[in-house]
Amino acid sequence: MTVEFWYLIGAVLVFWMQAGFAMVETGFTRAKNAGNIIMKNLMDFCIGTIVFSLLGYSLMMGQDALRGLVGLPNLQLWTNFREIIASPSDGSFTAASTFVFNLVFCATTATIVSGAMAERTKFSAYCIYSAVISLFIYPIEAHWIWGGGWLSRLGFHDYAGSCAIHMVGGIAALVGAIILGPRLGKYVKDEKGKVLKVNAIPGHSITLGALGVFILWLGWYGFNGAAATNVSELASIFLTTTIAPSVATVTTMLYTWFKNGKPDVSMCLNASLAGLVGITAGCDALDTIGSCVVGIVSGILVVVVVEALDLKLHIDDPVGAVGVHCANGIWGTLAVGLLANPSAPAGLSGLLYTGSASLLGIQCLGVLTVAAYATVMMFAVFVLIRKFNGLRVAPEDEVAGLDSTEHGLPSAYPDFAPAVNKYSAYAPEEGITAVTGDVPEAEAVPVKVAAGYASPAVQDGHKFTKVEIICKDSRFDALKTAMAKLGITGMTVSHVLGCGIQGGQPEYYRGVRLESNLLPKVQVDIVVSKIPVRSVIETAKRVLYTGHYGDGKIFVYDVENVVKIRTGEEGYDALQDVE
Amino acid sequence: MTVEFWYLIGAVLVFWMQAGFAMVETGFTRAKNAGNIIMKNLMDFCIGTIVFSLLGYSLMMGQDALRGLVGLPNLQLWTNFREIIASPSDGSFTAASTFVFNLVFCATTATIVSGAMAERTKFSAYCIYSAVISLFIYPIEAHWIWGGGWLSRLGFHDYAGSCAIHMVGGIAALVGAIILGPRLGKYVKDEKGKVLKVNAIPGHSITLGALGVFILWLGWYGFNGAAATNVSELASIFLTTTIAPSVATVTTMLYTWFKNGKPDVSMCLNASLAGLVGITAGCDALDTIGSCVVGIVSGILVVVVVEALDLKLHIDDPVGAVGVHCANGIWGTLAVGLLANPSAPAGLSGLLYTGSASLLGIQCLGVLTVAAYATVMMFAVFVLIRKFNGLRVAPEDEVAGLDSTEHGLPSAYPDFAPAVNKYSAYAPEEGITAVTGDVPEAEAVPVKVAAGYASPAVQDGHKFTKVEIICKDSRFDALKTAMAKLGITGMTVSHVLGCGIQGGQPEYYRGVRLESNLLPKVQVDIVVSKIPVRSVIETAKRVLYTGHYGDGKIFVYDVENVVKIRTGEEGYDALQDVE
Amino acid sequence: MTVEFWYLIGAVLVFWMQAGFAMVETGFTRAKNAGNIIMKNLMDFCIGTIVFSLLGYSLMMGQDALRGLVGLPNLQLWTNFREIIASPSDGSFTAASTFVFNLVFCATTATIVSGAMAERTKFSAYCIYSAVISLFIYPIEAHWIWGGGWLSRLGFHDYAGSCAIHMVGGIAALVGAIILGPRLGKYVKDEKGKVLKVNAIPGHSITLGALGVFILWLGWYGFNGAAATNVSELASIFLTTTIAPSVATVTTMLYTWFKNGKPDVSMCLNASLAGLVGITAGCDALDTIGSCVVGIVSGILVVVVVEALDLKLHIDDPVGAVGVHCANGIWGTLAVGLLANPSAPAGLSGLLYTGSASLLGIQCLGVLTVAAYATVMMFAVFVLIRKFNGLRVAPEDEVAGLDSTEHGLPSAYPDFAPAVNKYSAYAPEEGITAVTGDVPEAEAVPVKVAAGYASPAVQDGHKFTKVEIICKDSRFDALKTAMAKLGITGMTVSHVLGCGIQGGQPEYYRGVRLESNLLPKVQVDIVVSKIPVRSVIETAKRVLYTGHYGDGKIFVYDVENVVKIRTGEEGYDALQDVE
Repeated sequence: MTVEFWYLIGAVLVFWMQAGFAMVETGFTRAKNAGNIIMKNLMDFCIGTIVFSLLGYSLMMGQDALRGLVGLPNLQLWTNFREIIASPSDGSFTAASTFVFNLVFCATTATIVSGAMAERTKFSAYCIYSAVISLFIYPIEAHWIWGGGWLSRLGFHDYAGSCAIHMVGGIAALVGAIILGPRLGKYVKDEKGKVLKVNAIPGHSITLGALGVFILWLGWYGFNGAAATNVSELASIFLTTTIAPSVATVTTMLYTWFKNGKPDVSMCLNASLAGLVGITAGCDALDTIGSCVVGIVSGILVVVVVEALDLKLHIDDPVGAVGVHCANGIWGTLAVGLLANPSAPAGLSGLLYTGSASLLGIQCLGVLTVAAYATVMMFAVFVLIRKFNGLRVAPEDEVAGLDSTEHGLPSAYPDFAPAVNKYSAYAPEEGITAVTGDVPEAEAVPVKVAAGYASPAVQDGHKFTKVEIICKDSRFDALKTAMAKLGITGMTVSHVLGCGIQGGQPEYYRGVRLESNLLPKVQVDIVVSKIPVRSVIETAKRVLYTGHYGDGKIFVYDVENVVKIRTGEEGYDALQDVE
Repeated sequence: MTVEFWYLIGAVLVFWMQAGFAMVETGFTRAKNAGNIIMKNLMDFCIGTIVFSLLGYSLMMGQDALRGLVGLPNLQLWTNFREIIASPSDGSFTAASTFVFNLVFCATTATIVSGAMAERTKFSAYCIYSAVISLFIYPIEAHWIWGGGWLSRLGFHDYAGSCAIHMVGGIAALVGAIILGPRLGKYVKDEKGKVLKVNAIPGHSITLGALGVFILWLGWYGFNGAAATNVSELASIFLTTTIAPSVATVTTMLYTWFKNGKPDVSMCLNASLAGLVGITAGCDALDTIGSCVVGIVSGILVVVVVEALDLKLHIDDPVGAVGVHCANGIWGTLAVGLLANPSAPAGLSGLLYTGSASLLGIQCLGVLTVAAYATVMMFAVFVLIRKFNGLRVAPEDEVAGLDSTEHGLPSAYPDFAPAVNKYSAYAPEEGITAVTGDVPEAEAVPVKVAAGYASPAVQDGHKFTKVEIICKDSRFDALKTAMAKLGITGMTVSHVLGCGIQGGQPEYYRGVRLESNLLPKVQVDIVVSKIPVRSVIETAKRVLYTGHYGDGKIFVYDVENVVKIRTGEEGYDALQDVE
Repeated sequence: MTVEFWYLIGAVLVFWMQAGFAMVETGFTRAKNAGNIIMKNLMDFCIGTIVFSLLGYSLMMGQDALRGLVGLPNLQLWTNFREIIASPSDGSFTAASTFVFNLVFCATTATIVSGAMAERTKFSAYCIYSAVISLFIYPIEAHWIWGGGWLSRLGFHDYAGSCAIHMVGGIAALVGAIILGPRLGKYVKDEKGKVLKVNAIPGHSITLGALGVFILWLGWYGFNGAAATNVSELASIFLTTTIAPSVATVTTMLYTWFKNGKPDVSMCLNASLAGLVGITAGCDALDTIGSCVVGIVSGILVVVVVEALDLKLHIDDPVGAVGVHCANGIWGTLAVGLLANPSAPAGLSGLLYTGSASLLGIQCLGVLTVAAYATVMMFAVFVLIRKFNGLRVAPEDEVAGLDSTEHGLPSAYPDFAPAVNKYSAYAPEEGITAVTGDVPEAEAVPVKVAAGYASPAVQDGHKFTKVEIICKDSRFDALKTAMAKLGITGMTVSHVLGCGIQGGQPEYYRGVRLESNLLPKVQVDIVVSKIPVRSVIETAKRVLYTGHYGDGKIFVYDVENVVKIRTGEEGYDALQDVE
C-alpha cells in the first residue's frame, strides 16, 4: 500500500503549491489587482480539473499512439475510475490516483503563466488559455516525457518536470508577456518607441510573497518526491531538493549584495524557487555536489535573466516567471546530462562524471523539441485569443485595477488607505486619459477670471498663495512633471476621497450593490510667491483636463507666512529655494 | 501500522483547517475585528480540546447507551490513553489516536459558527457556546452517526460529516445569526422595521480569505480521506474531493458572470468550500459524474442561499457560513441517497443508479432529526447565554471594533492608515451615538456668533468659504447625508488623527500600557459660496453633536478662488454644479 | 519502509515551521522591517543548510569522540549520501535522511534568535551568528543529547528538543537582546539611565502572526512526532502535543483576562507556542494529566517572563522569544523529571509518579550544563561580532527601517498609506536626529520676520491662526510633546508625502532603480488664538531643526472662525479648553 499512498500524499502537497503561486503572484503585484490574481489562480486549478478530466488526462496517459506522439483519448475516468491501470512510469495504480497525481502537476504548468501576464490580461482570455494548456498543450508534451512517448523511449530524463512543467510554463509566460506588451508605465518611450527609462513597479506585499515561497518550497518536497518508489530514493530527493535552493538563495544574496551594495529581498525569494526548478529534473540523478552546482548557477541565472528581460529586452514579467521557470527549467534539464552521478538513485551517466555526452545530447534534443513545440503552440493560442476574444484590458481599466473592472470588487483591502503612488504608475506620454469628454477643450480652457482674484491683498510686497489641487491619482505624475518644469519642486501630497455626483460602474459584493460616491483622489498643495498663481492654475488645468467628470478642482487660498525650518528663513525667502 | 498512521496524518491535516477558518473569517470581515476573530478561532480549538477530553469524547465514542442515543462517559483518556479501544467505525486504535482524530472534527463544527456571528458577539458568549457545542451538542449527534448510535444502525451514510459537522455547524450559525441580529449598518430600516436598503460590508483582505480557502481545501483531503482504510478507497475519495469543488467553483464563476456581468471573487471562494461540503458525505460513495452533479448544484446553491439570506430574509452572515455549510451540508447528505454508485468504495445504492429510494429515505430521516436536534439545542443555548451572560456587545463597542473593546488591542494593523469607510458602516437612523453627553443640547446648539465672522470680506459679490469639519469616523455617513440634503455634493474627505485630552479606555499590548491621545478622525472639507456657511455649520453641529468629548471641531477659512478643471469655470460658477 | 518514510514526512513538517517563524516574527514587528525579517528567516535556513552540511552535521551525528563531547567530522554526505548509517537514536537510515531530518531541527534553533533581535540587528551580523549556531554551537550540544554524547549516556531525556533546541535558541535570543540593547523608543530613560517609561511597540499584523502560530502548531506535530518509531508512540505524542498547548492557551486567556480585564490576543498566541515548547521534551513521556500540568505552567510562565523581561529587566524582546522558548524550554525539560509516567511510551520515572528524583537530577544537570555552554558561547559570538563586524545598525537606519537601509527595499507594502505612529517610536531624548546639518543653528534661528505678518487683521479682538507644520515622521513625537508644554493639546495630524529636492539613497527593486522625490512626512495643523503664533513657530523650529534637508516647512493661515461641536462654542471660546 505504501507507495501509492505516498503518491497521493505527495499529490496533496503539489496541490498546496497552488496556494503558493497565488501568494507569490499576488504579493509581487499591486493591491488593485489582488482579487483578480487570486481568481486566476483559483480558476486555473478548477478549469484545469474539468478539461484535464475530459481529455487532457487520456491524451497524456492513454495508450500510446502515432509512434509516441500522443495518448489515445478514453473515458475510463468517467466510467470506471477504480480500475487498475498500467501507468508506464509509476507502477500499477488506480485511474483515480493517476488522475489526481497528474492533474496537480498539469495545473502547476498553467499557473506559471499567469504571473508573467499579471495586471493587464483580460480574465476571459486567461480562462481560455489556461483551459487550452490543460486540455492538450501540456498533455501532449507530457505524454512524450512521462506517458510512454518518444522522448521517454529515447532515455530523456526529467524526473519531476524542469522541462515538462517549468520550461513549458515559462515559455508560455514569455510568449504571453511578449504578445501582451508591458504594463502601462513600465517603460517610458520616446516617439520612435525607444525605451528611455525603466520603471520599477513594486509588489504590494513582500510578506505574502515570502509566504508563497515557503509554501512552494514545502510543496516541492511533494513535487519532486511524490513519484519515489522507495524510501532511499525519497531521501536522496529530499537532500537534493534542500541543497539546491539553499545554495541558490545564498548565491543570489551574495551576488546582489556585491552588485547593488545590498542583498535584495525579492530576488532572494525568486532564487529559492529558481534553485527548486533547477533541481527538479535531476533530483534523483544528482549528488550533493551536483545539487550545489545547480544551485550556484540557478542563483546567478535568475538574476541575470530577470534583469536582462526587464532592462535590455524590455519584456515585462511582473513576478519573474521567465527567469525562474523558463531559464532554470532549461538549465535543470541540461544539468542532468552534465551532472548525473551514476551512483545516485537514477543511475544515469552525466558528462562530467563519466565523460559520456550521450545523455546530454538527449537532454538537449528534448529541450529543443519541447521548447519549439511550446513556443509555436502558445504563440498560436495567444494570437487566436487576441483576434477572437481580446487579450488585454482597456488602458483605463488597467489604470483603475482589474479587481474593480474585471470583477466588480472595489478593493481587496477596503479598510486600508491606499498610498499615493510614489513611482510612475504610467508615463504621461502614454496618453491614457485622452481628451474625450463632452466639454470641448477650446471652450473650456479660456477661463473667466474672478474679479476679486485679480487684486490680491499684497503684504510686504509679496503675497503667498496656496494652490490646492484635487485630481485623479492617475494624473498625478503628469502634474508633478509639469510643475517641476514651472520651477515648483516643493509640494505636499496626500491621498483623499473626493465626493461628487460621478457614479462609476455599479459594483457588486456578494450580490449586494455597493454604492459610493467617494472616489480616490490626490490632493496636491503648492505654496507660491514668485511664480504666478495664474501659471500654476493654467498648467494644472492643461495637464489634468480630460473633459470627463472627476477631473477635479483647484482651490486658491491666501497664506500669511512661510517658514523653512532648516534655514530659519521666513516669507518670500523661505520659498526661493527648494527643499 | 499504515492505516492508523494515515489516520493520524489526516487528523493533522484537519487540524490545519483551523488556520483556514481563521483566515477566511478574518479576511471576509473588517480589520477592526481581526484580532477578535483570530482569538475566537484559536479558543475554539483550545477550549474544545479541554471540554471534549473531559466529556464530549466519551459521549461520542463511549459504550452505546439508551438505545443508540448517547455514549457512556468514561475517563479512559485520563487514566489509560494507550489502551486499544474498539472503535465502531475505524478498527481498533488506541484511545489517544481516536481522541485526536475526533477532536479535530469536533473543533471544526464549533468553528463554523463564529463566521456567521462575527463582528458583534461578546467574546465571553463565544467561549461559552463554543464550549457547549464541543461538550455535548456535537458529541451526541456524532454518536448517532459515527459512534454506533441509532442512525448508523439504520444505515445512514455521512462519510466525513456533511450532516454531522457542516449541517450542524451551519444550523448553529443560522440560529446564532438570527438571535444576534445583523451588524449595525447592514440593513437600513424605516420606523416599522421594514428594510429599505441592504448595505454591503466588504471584508478587509481578499488575499487572506483566499489563502484560507486554499488551506481548507488542502485540509479537506485529510477531512474526507483520513478514515480511509485502503489506498484504493483513498484514491476514490481524493478524486471526488477534487472534482466537486472544482466544478462548483467554475459553476459559480459562470453563474455570477451571467447574473451580475462579472465573475465574483468572494463568491467563487465560497463556492470551492461549498463543493467540498457537498461532497463530504458521499466522497466514498459517488463516482466522477456524481461528483460533477454535486459540484454544479453546490455552486448555484451557495449563491442563491447567500443572497436570499441577505437580500430577502435580512439575516446577516458575514462570511456565508449558512450558504456554505448548512445548505450544502444538507444537499451533500441527500446527494448520497440520490447519486451513490454501487461500484464506488462504499457500495451504496443511490436512487438514480438503482431506482431504490430506501437509502434516500434514511438520509432524509437523518437530516431531519439531526437538524431538529441542532436547532432546538442551539436555540436554547443562545437564549440562555443572552439571558445570563449577554450575547452581543454594546453598539458603541461594535462601532469601535471588537479588537479594541473586547481585547484591548488598539489595532491588528497599527502601521497602516485606516481607510475612511466608503460604504455605510451603519445607518444614522440606528442612533448609536445617542445624545448622552454632559452638555445639554438645548444649551449647546444656539451658539454665540463670533462678531468678526458676521461681516466677511466679499469679493466680486461672492465670497468663497472653506468649512473644515473634523469629526468621528462613525458620524461621517450621517454628515454626508445631511450635507447632500443641503445641496452640497462636492467635498474632500481624508483620514486624520485628532489630538485632544479625551483619553479612551486604557489598553494593554503584551502587558504594556498603550498611551495615545491621537484618535482617528475624519476631516471633511467643503467649499461653499451660494449655500450659507451658517447653514453648513449648524447642520454639521446638529448631526455630529452627541455631547461627548471627541465630537470634533469646525474651522472656517476664506477661499480666494475656485477652478473646476473639467469646464474651466472659475469662482462662483465653478461651485454651481457638482462634480 | 514506513518508519523512515514518516521520518522524512515529519522533517518536511518541521521545515514548514520556518514559514511559521517568519510569519510570527514579521507579524509581531513593524511594517518597516518586514522584508528584513523575511530575509533573515529565509537565510537562516539557507545558510544553515550549507554550514550544517559542511561541518555541523558530522559534529552532531559523526562517530563520538572526546568521551561524548563531539562527533568526528566526516564528508560522508558529500561522498556517499546514500550509505546506511548507524544513527544512535533513530535506527539505521541513509545519511541523506539523517541529514535532512537533523538540518530542519538545527535551523529551528537558529531561527528562534532572530525574533528577539529583530528591528535593530545588522543583516551581516545576523548571517554570521546564524551560521555559527548551525556550524558548531548547536551541533555540539545536540551531539551531547541526541548524537550519542555524554548526556544521552546518562539518561537525559529531551525527546524533541525543549532543551537542545528551544532553551538553547532562547538563551541565544536572551544574550543577543541584552548585548544589542533595546530598540530606540522602547524605554524612556532619565539622565542616569533609569527607565521612566516603557513603551509598547505593537506588531504590524496580528493576522500574519496568528497564521504563523497555526503553521508552527501544525509543524510541531512533525517536530515532536517525526522520531516516533511506531504508531502507538505517535498517537501518544499527538495527544500530549494537542493537550499542552490548548491548556496553555486557555490558561493565558483566563490569566490575562483576570489580570488586565481583557483577554490578550498576542499573549494567547504566544501561549500556544509556550505550551508546545513545554511539552516537547516529554511528549512521549507524559500522560494526559501531565500534559495539562505542563500547559497550565507554560501559560502562566510565558506571561510572567515576557512582562518581567520588559517591565522589570528592560530587555527588549519584540516577539517574546525568551518567554516562549527559553523559559518553557527549561520548564519542559525539568517537567520530564517531575511528571514522566512510567506507562507512557518512554517508560520513564518522574518524581511525582514514582518518588524517584534521579531522572529529575539528570534533567537539572542537563539544563545547567547546556545552558552554561550556550550562554558562554553565544556571549563570545556576539561580542566578537560586535567588535569585528558591528552588531547593530545606525540609529537613523533603525528609525528609517531596515527594509530600506539594509536591503534597498523602500517598503514591503508600497500600496498602503503608512499610519502616523501613534505610540512613541522613540523618545526625543535619545537624540537620534542630532543637529549636524550645514546651516549653523545660531544663524538659522533668528529669523527675518515678514513685515505683513506683524500686523494681522484682528477680528472681534481675536485673531485665529492656523499653523501648518510639515515635518519628519521621526520628529513628530518631540513636536507633540513640545506643543503640549506650550499648552496646545488640540491638533490634527495626517500622513502626507513631501516633494522636494532631497534625494535619499538610491534604491533598487529587482535590479531597477527606484526614483522618487516624494518622502513621507507628517502634517500637523494647529489653530491658535490666545497662544502667540510666534511661540508656536519658534517652538516648532527648535524641536524640528536638525540642519538637514527635509527638516520641513511651516505655513501660517488666517482662520475666520472656529466651532467646538460638543459645546457649541464659537470663536475664541472654542479654543480655550481642550478637546
